[in-house]
Amino acid sequence: MRTESPDTELIERTLRGDRVALARALSWVENEAPGSTALLDACFAKTGAARRIGITGPPGAGKSTLVTRLAQEYRARERSVAIVAVDPTSPFSGGALLGDRVRMAELAGDPGVFIRSMATRGSLGGLAVHTAQACDVLDAAGFERILIETVGVGQSELEIAETADSTAVVLVPESGDSIQAMKAGLMEIGDLFVINKADRDGADRGAHAIRSALALRAPTSEWRPPVLMTVASQGTGVTELVSGFEEHLAFLETAGDLERRRRRRLEQHLEELLHAALWRSFRSRVPETAWREVIAELVERRVTPHQAAERLLAD
Amino acid sequence: MRTESPDTELIERTLRGDRVALARALSWVENEAPGSTALLDACFAKTGAARRIGITGPPGAGKSTLVTRLAQEYRARERSVAIVAVDPTSPFSGGALLGDRVRMAELAGDPGVFIRSMATRGSLGGLAVHTAQACDVLDAAGFERILIETVGVGQSELEIAETADSTAVVLVPESGDSIQAMKAGLMEIGDLFVINKADRDGADRGAHAIRSALALRAPTSEWRPPVLMTVASQGTGVTELVSGFEEHLAFLETAGDLERRRRRRLEQHLEELLHAALWRSFRSRVPETAWREVIAELVERRVTPHQAAERLLAD
Repeated sequence: MRTESPDTELIERTLRGDRVALARALSWVENEAPGSTALLDACFAKTGAARRIGITGPPGAGKSTLVTRLAQEYRARERSVAIVAVDPTSPFSGGALLGDRVRMAELAGDPGVFIRSMATRGSLGGLAVHTAQACDVLDAAGFERILIETVGVGQSELEIAETADSTAVVLVPESGDSIQAMKAGLMEIGDLFVINKADRDGADRGAHAIRSALALRAPTSEWRPPVLMTVASQGTGVTELVSGFEEHLAFLETAGDLERRRRRRLEQHLEELLHAALWRSFRSRVPETAWREVIAELVERRVTPHQAAERLLAD
Repeated sequence: MRTESPDTELIERTLRGDRVALARALSWVENEAPGSTALLDACFAKTGAARRIGITGPPGAGKSTLVTRLAQEYRARERSVAIVAVDPTSPFSGGALLGDRVRMAELAGDPGVFIRSMATRGSLGGLAVHTAQACDVLDAAGFERILIETVGVGQSELEIAETADSTAVVLVPESGDSIQAMKAGLMEIGDLFVINKADRDGADRGAHAIRSALALRAPTSEWRPPVLMTVASQGTGVTELVSGFEEHLAFLETAGDLERRRRRRLEQHLEELLHAALWRSFRSRVPETAWREVIAELVERRVTPHQAAERLLAD
């Protein structure tokens, strides 16, 4: 019998790390299937052991290849690894899927590796929430390191980066040439910086530009973000990058920052759930006719948005 | 006497287009000063005549120069113009201010032009709301065209683009070389596409790449986005671009799309106000101790986020 929503058996199998159950559980979370709350609740108590590592940066920086190499290095260190590849960009880019297939071929057959792609479904806010929930499921299923790869730059990346304990910003030598590339908040979110494709011209100049920009960053902790060089296609610098992540994670634990970051994340998640519940409850109390009437008056400028809000809240 | 919040006199002067009053009114909106609601309510009834034009694209595409030229062309056509330059990027980039000073020198002294920069203040959602509100004030003050310039690519641009009636995506010849540049939703939001710096190599190839990508876009209207070439620094192609905007605006009016876009925008704005009010009212009802207790239980994993939300909503 094929179940339509997560049942006790599926939840148990997911928590044991059963790959088929895990894949189905993640789909339920992504589709907000009925019963996914029960699944997430069951997972929640078992979360906390995994370390979540974010890898972000502009398109074309070679993040997919780098993440594949990172997974291989973690496997060499006998850590189990899950990869969550998030593509919040245009649905017709297709990049995520293609990169994923190449990667699957390289990592296939290793039971200590699990790969999952998450694509945008219209709601970018939803994508950040689903990514965090997918990480909870993978954490509860026993994966020790979760690599979260995000494409592009922008608000969605900032939100997804907040899901990670440690985040690396991946750039290419040319990125450093222009202060423009440093915009869009990328400099603020990095715990580590990586110049990938560092065998190209300008890698040293790029690293220097990043260090100069970092010097301007308001210090928020004792941690000083390192700037590392990699050539992911050849595996160069990958060992050092994994060591960099592990050092940062150890630092976070010692400094109490891991606890603080996680507390803030839980608080944010609670707020999101409350926002959604408040809205659902409010909208169910407003009759559709009353809603449409207010919108019509708004369009005709007979009421202002504030007046319309006040009237709906008063009713 | 210096007033601390918008009074009737300031509101009247703003609606008459008095520049000093307008500058202060916009600051009140941006800072959410007490009384700014009264100002926005007074402006709302007078909005609707202005046309809002978005100019977006990646950093370095030459948007500031292009917007300056567009303003000059609109002035030549005897349209009054307001420029709202939005920089949602890193606070230490400084780009917005620098570009603004150059522009001010070029457009200074013309009473038919008004320039306003809006910078991020931590909350990106807030920036999109403030930009829309600033446009309402400028609309009510009688400006016929409002040029909204946004830096970077990402979720914040998508939100800001939704404020505009017509949006041009500005790229450079090299952008077209790579399908990567087409990501992050840029292809979806453009009503017009511009290759700026078109005197550089590869402009034709770039235009071709954009047209190919556009051919893949799901058709949502009868409008077929043109791909135009400009060299903003020399003023080349600017007349054609202004004509392109005017054609698109005329199309929107004929097709009824302008009405539909504006209705959706008003509905979204109403929802934002309601979300904020519901949250304020909820938080004011939860005692700080109860909130802290729930967070502590969450951190210790004694309750799940869903259980915590349910308990707070039940109390």
